[in-house]
Amino acid sequence: MKIAIDAMGGDHAPREIVRGVEKAAKDFTDAAFTLYGNEKDIQQYLTSHERIEIVHTTEVIGADDEPVRAVRRKKEASMVKMAQAVADGQADACISAGNTGALMASGLFIVGRIKGVERPALAPTLPTIDGKGFVMLDLGANVDAKPEHLLQYAYMGKIYAENVRKIENPRVALLNIGSEQNKGNDLTKKTYDLLKKANVNFTGNIEARELLEGHADVVVTDGFTGNVVLKAIEGTAASLFSMLKKTMTKSVKNKLAAGIIKGDLLELKDQMDYTEYGGACLFGLESPVIKAHGSSNANAVYHAIRQAFDIVKNDVTGTIKANITEQNG
Amino acid sequence: MKIAIDAMGGDHAPREIVRGVEKAAKDFTDAAFTLYGNEKDIQQYLTSHERIEIVHTTEVIGADDEPVRAVRRKKEASMVKMAQAVADGQADACISAGNTGALMASGLFIVGRIKGVERPALAPTLPTIDGKGFVMLDLGANVDAKPEHLLQYAYMGKIYAENVRKIENPRVALLNIGSEQNKGNDLTKKTYDLLKKANVNFTGNIEARELLEGHADVVVTDGFTGNVVLKAIEGTAASLFSMLKKTMTKSVKNKLAAGIIKGDLLELKDQMDYTEYGGACLFGLESPVIKAHGSSNANAVYHAIRQAFDIVKNDVTGTIKANITEQNG
Repeated sequence: MKIAIDAMGGDHAPREIVRGVEKAAKDFTDAAFTLYGNEKDIQQYLTSHERIEIVHTTEVIGADDEPVRAVRRKKEASMVKMAQAVADGQADACISAGNTGALMASGLFIVGRIKGVERPALAPTLPTIDGKGFVMLDLGANVDAKPEHLLQYAYMGKIYAENVRKIENPRVALLNIGSEQNKGNDLTKKTYDLLKKANVNFTGNIEARELLEGHADVVVTDGFTGNVVLKAIEGTAASLFSMLKKTMTKSVKNKLAAGIIKGDLLELKDQMDYTEYGGACLFGLESPVIKAHGSSNANAVYHAIRQAFDIVKNDVTGTIKANITEQNG
Repeated sequence: MKIAIDAMGGDHAPREIVRGVEKAAKDFTDAAFTLYGNEKDIQQYLTSHERIEIVHTTEVIGADDEPVRAVRRKKEASMVKMAQAVADGQADACISAGNTGALMASGLFIVGRIKGVERPALAPTLPTIDGKGFVMLDLGANVDAKPEHLLQYAYMGKIYAENVRKIENPRVALLNIGSEQNKGNDLTKKTYDLLKKANVNFTGNIEARELLEGHADVVVTDGFTGNVVLKAIEGTAASLFSMLKKTMTKSVKNKLAAGIIKGDLLELKDQMDYTEYGGACLFGLESPVIKAHGSSNANAVYHAIRQAFDIVKNDVTGTIKANITEQNG
């Protein structure tokens, strides 16, 4: 198996990307890795070359680049070259921690959609308080979604949950503003009707309040709502941890108490760190494309690689293709 | 000034409602209060009758009642009678901690819309880490909103922020999935264009991640997204506090540390308690209708009353009416 990696994407590239790949190369001995990026910068951090090769690239897509334009114009960018390798069959999956919009555009225009998939979906695995996590999609690939798109998300999320997360008969829920069937806007009402008839274990509506409580294995929503909810969860957690930190350091006695429980509090913070579950998958493309978090450290990169490895090994893309053919025909 | 209160709505009714009203009656000496509900149940908790009267009602709308049907059929319900008092001019504002949907239906069908307001909006004041808070609307009165509705929300939110929260030239932002103008779905893109030309201090898009950081005084969004975001914030905060509690009690040494900082942690929790800012206002109705949180204690009821008092005293409804007339022509 060959995995292509954008060495220049993310806040801590290339250092943390290279370190994550080296760690993965040690564990996944039947995989080989190609790093796309500035060779000199990459070599600076690379200590082993076993099953790791470098393809030198001369351009980089930045966080502020306009996604579609950047992918079209920066033909020599590390991300574009990485996606091209997958499209050409030189790699089985690709990973980037760079510009999310540009990676979605690379997936759509370079890697290509599976025939029959109307809209690809961005799907991270989010944390729950029981530590099991759930797959949520779409988180922003498609901001004006139709009920039929959400139905396909449900199938793709189910296939991922079954094959990679090894969950039997995964519970699929619809993000909505109430638990009853008649709740919601036009989109969720119509989607509810489709999901009720679909060949998934549909458990009904789920409210944003319960998301972290582990009541569902797959949650479907439109890309606008999904993106807003993800950021609301992240922002609330970040605000609370920052307030907590302030509380812990505001007096000598608090600092003393903080010293006692510091380890456990860091563990709590880690529990909310969803990079442990890997990156966000772009489902519905001809090959797996993984978006690692922009702030990824070596460990997060490692987990994104493990995820790509599992997706390829369990043929998630092939299963999605077969399912789409079955649904459409 | 006369304020009508549904004594039977909310998880702790009528006890906490009655206690909140008694507290308010002491502080707001130029207001009189009418409690709608079961007289015997109310009397059980009422210790003073100064400027507090009771109107006995025989029905109650429950949390699980279908809102529109309940309002239409339960003509003798405390909530319906309360709204009727406002519609009849016997009261200047009304407050309920009961069924949110039923209160919105009571507002729409009994109190009535301001002419020219297409859709009323539900607007709570949410907490920020700097303790100042911001008004967000709509939080669920209108789930399939159009750009023109969001424009009206901006004007109504601005008027509330200026007149009740006493913020000069309040910053109005649009909840969106990116900070740039071209970001978002069809609704937010069109709304952005309207807000840019509107007579409000429009500061552009705000992401859900930054909501609690205090970058805006008024945030507009459609009722579906707003409701989901509110619940995501509430749910994340609740999950984190529950995890924190578990951490604090998991060992003897942690319990010891928790003992030292308990007071400060409770203060932190209070800071996130937005009932301190009052309830959620229903803007766009002929008279002020306030939704107090379902779990309201006496203190939350008191703050909702203070808010109703300020809204009436500063003639928010009259100012909205004048503004709508101006906008429409």
